[in-house]
Amino acid sequence: MGNTKIVETKILKINEPIKLQCGKTLEEYEIAYETYGKLNEDKSNAILVLHALTGDAHAAYYHKNATKPGWWDDMIGENKAFDTNKFFIISSNVLGGCKGTTGPSSINKETKKPWALDFPVITIEDMVNVQKKLIDYLGIKKIIVAGGSMGGMQALEWSIAYPEYVKSTILIATSARLNAQAIAFNAVARNAILKDANFNNGNYYDSKHPENGLAIARMVGHITYLCQEAMYKKFGREFKEKPSFDFGVDFQVESYLEHQGKIFVDRFDANSYLYITKALDYYDPIKTHGSLENALKESKSNFLIISFSTDWLFTTEQSKQIVRTLIKLNKNVSFVELESKCGHDAFLLEFEKQTKIIKSFLGV
Amino acid sequence: MGNTKIVETKILKINEPIKLQCGKTLEEYEIAYETYGKLNEDKSNAILVLHALTGDAHAAYYHKNATKPGWWDDMIGENKAFDTNKFFIISSNVLGGCKGTTGPSSINKETKKPWALDFPVITIEDMVNVQKKLIDYLGIKKIIVAGGSMGGMQALEWSIAYPEYVKSTILIATSARLNAQAIAFNAVARNAILKDANFNNGNYYDSKHPENGLAIARMVGHITYLCQEAMYKKFGREFKEKPSFDFGVDFQVESYLEHQGKIFVDRFDANSYLYITKALDYYDPIKTHGSLENALKESKSNFLIISFSTDWLFTTEQSKQIVRTLIKLNKNVSFVELESKCGHDAFLLEFEKQTKIIKSFLGV
Repeated sequence: MGNTKIVETKILKINEPIKLQCGKTLEEYEIAYETYGKLNEDKSNAILVLHALTGDAHAAYYHKNATKPGWWDDMIGENKAFDTNKFFIISSNVLGGCKGTTGPSSINKETKKPWALDFPVITIEDMVNVQKKLIDYLGIKKIIVAGGSMGGMQALEWSIAYPEYVKSTILIATSARLNAQAIAFNAVARNAILKDANFNNGNYYDSKHPENGLAIARMVGHITYLCQEAMYKKFGREFKEKPSFDFGVDFQVESYLEHQGKIFVDRFDANSYLYITKALDYYDPIKTHGSLENALKESKSNFLIISFSTDWLFTTEQSKQIVRTLIKLNKNVSFVELESKCGHDAFLLEFEKQTKIIKSFLGV
Repeated sequence: MGNTKIVETKILKINEPIKLQCGKTLEEYEIAYETYGKLNEDKSNAILVLHALTGDAHAAYYHKNATKPGWWDDMIGENKAFDTNKFFIISSNVLGGCKGTTGPSSINKETKKPWALDFPVITIEDMVNVQKKLIDYLGIKKIIVAGGSMGGMQALEWSIAYPEYVKSTILIATSARLNAQAIAFNAVARNAILKDANFNNGNYYDSKHPENGLAIARMVGHITYLCQEAMYKKFGREFKEKPSFDFGVDFQVESYLEHQGKIFVDRFDANSYLYITKALDYYDPIKTHGSLENALKESKSNFLIISFSTDWLFTTEQSKQIVRTLIKLNKNVSFVELESKCGHDAFLLEFEKQTKIIKSFLGV
C-alpha cells in the first residue's frame, strides 16, 4: 500500500564555513531535507536515508498536488522497511545537487550569479560532512544510515567518518569505489554534457541548456541501471511500430531511452550531473585510508549489505569485498545477494525482498 | 611474425542496379577490396573475410609508406590462420562504409553532392549481396566466409543467402542478432551524432564535421568492446597524474577513451556510423525467415563458431543459439568458447588461440 501523506521539503541554512576535500571553503550553504515519522524523546530512533546520483530529499510521501510520491516511497512509511511507526526517517539532497541543497545552480553570493563551474568540486566525504550538520541541527547523536548505489557510498562514509554516531549501516547495491568500467560510463556522460553546443562552460542558466548532452548522459546511465535480462524482458527486439528505414526510433528499447533522456532534462541540472558523477568517481576510501580495513577499523556499527544478482554496475563481488573486510575486523555484518532480474535498478524496485531483510536486521 | 608485404586497395565499379532491402534501388556503386595470396586455377581456394563496424577492406599487409598493417594482419599471411600459402583471401569494405565502397559520403551522381542521409538505409543482407557481385566478378563459385562481430553476421548471412556458394563458415564473437542492450548502446551512439550541433542533417561535408558526437559514439563503443576485467587490467583506478578537482580527464580509463574518440573522427565518417549501426540493429534472420532453423536449412556449409568468455556484447550464449540450431539441422558444426580477458575485442587480439582452431578447422 502506498503512502497518502503529504510532506514538504524544508531548508536548513548553515552560516558557518565548511572546508571541502578539494581544499576550498564554502562560506555558507543550504540543506534541503524531509522527515517522515516522529523523533522520539531520547532522539534514538533516527534513520538517515541517502539518495543516489539523481535522487533528492523527497524520498517518500507526496508533495502537495503531486501525482507521484518520493523515490523510496515503497520503502518508507507505516509497516514498511523503514517503518515510520517506529523510526524517524531523514532524507536530504546532497551537496552539489539541484534540488534545494547548495550546488552549481545555486546563486553565488559574491557574484550574484549561479556558481556554474566556479562551484568547488565536491566529494562523497563533503556530502556526508554536510549531512552531519543537519544531524547536529536535529540534535541527534546516534543514527542508522541506509542507502543504495551512491547512497550506499555515503552510508559507508558515515560509518568511516563518524564511527561514534553510526549504530547501523545498510549498504544496498553499492561498493567501496567505482570500478574502471563505471568510471568510463561516467566519463562518456560528462563528455556528452561538456561537448554540448549549449554548455557554454557551464554558464547556460540564462540561455538554452545543454539538453542534448544531458539526455545522452541519462541514456547511458539507464543502460547501466538495467541488465541484459531486464532489457530483454522489458523490450525484447520489438519494433515501436515497424522498421522505419531511417534514423528515427525503431526499437522499443530506443523509444524507452529517448523518453528517459527527454524527461530527465526537465528535472535535473547538467552541472549537478557533472559534479555528482565526479564525486562518484573520486570516492575511494581504500586509497584515502590505505586500506578498507583501516578505513573501517574504528566503526561501532553493525552492517547489513545487500547486492543484486544481475547488477553489473555495482556487483556482488564488490559488496563481498566490504563484507570480507568487516569479517576480518570482527564487525557484526549480515550479507545477502538477492536474486533479481532488474539489474542495478533493483534497489528501487525489489522492495518486498528488501523489506523483509531490512525489517529483520532492524529488529522490527 | 608480422607481414611485410605491400598491398593496394582496388576498386570494382558495378554499373548495374541493385535492389536493396528497404525497397530502393542503387543504380551503380563501387566496391573497395584487397586480396592476399593467389587464387588457384580452379578457383577453389578463396576465403572472404568480413569486417566489423569500423573495419575496412585493408585487412592485412601494409599500404605503401604506412606504419601500421591491416586490421587482421595477425590472422592473414604465410602460415597464419588464413594462410596465404594455401588460400586466396579477399576483403572488401561494406556497402554504406567510408573506405572506398559506396556509402553516404560518396557522390550521388544525380545531385553531384555527397549522398548524406539521402543514401538508402542498408542492411547486412545488402552488404552481402554487394559482396556477391565481387565474388562473381572474380569468377569464384565456392568460398569460405569468415568474420568477427558484424563480420560474423555477414558470414552467417552468406551461408543463408548463398548456400550453393559457401563451403565453410567461420563465425567469431558474433550472434544471429543483436540483443536489446547492444541496440541500446547503438541508439545512444547515433543520438550523440544526430544531436551534434554540426550534424546539419548529415550535410556536413563542406563544413565542420559532427566530431564531438562521433567521438562520444566511439567512446561508448569502446566500453562495450572491453570487459570489466580488461578495463581493470589495463587501467585499474589509476589517475592520469593526480586528481584534478575539475572536469578534465582524471583517470587513465578516461584518457584512453578520449584518445580513442579523438583518433576515430579522423578516420571515420559519422554518416557511415549511423548507417552501419542501423544495419547491425536491423539484422534478424530469425524474424526474416521465421526461425534460425528455417534460415539455415538450405546451407551446405560446415561451421566453426568461436566465442570469448568475457565478451558481453556478443555473448557465448548467443553463439550457442546458432550452434544448437545447426546441430538440430544435422549440419557439421564445431564450437569453442575461448577463455580470454579481452572482452569482445578478443577477436582482434587473441590471434594465437584463434589461429590454432581455425587452422585445424580449415585442415591446414
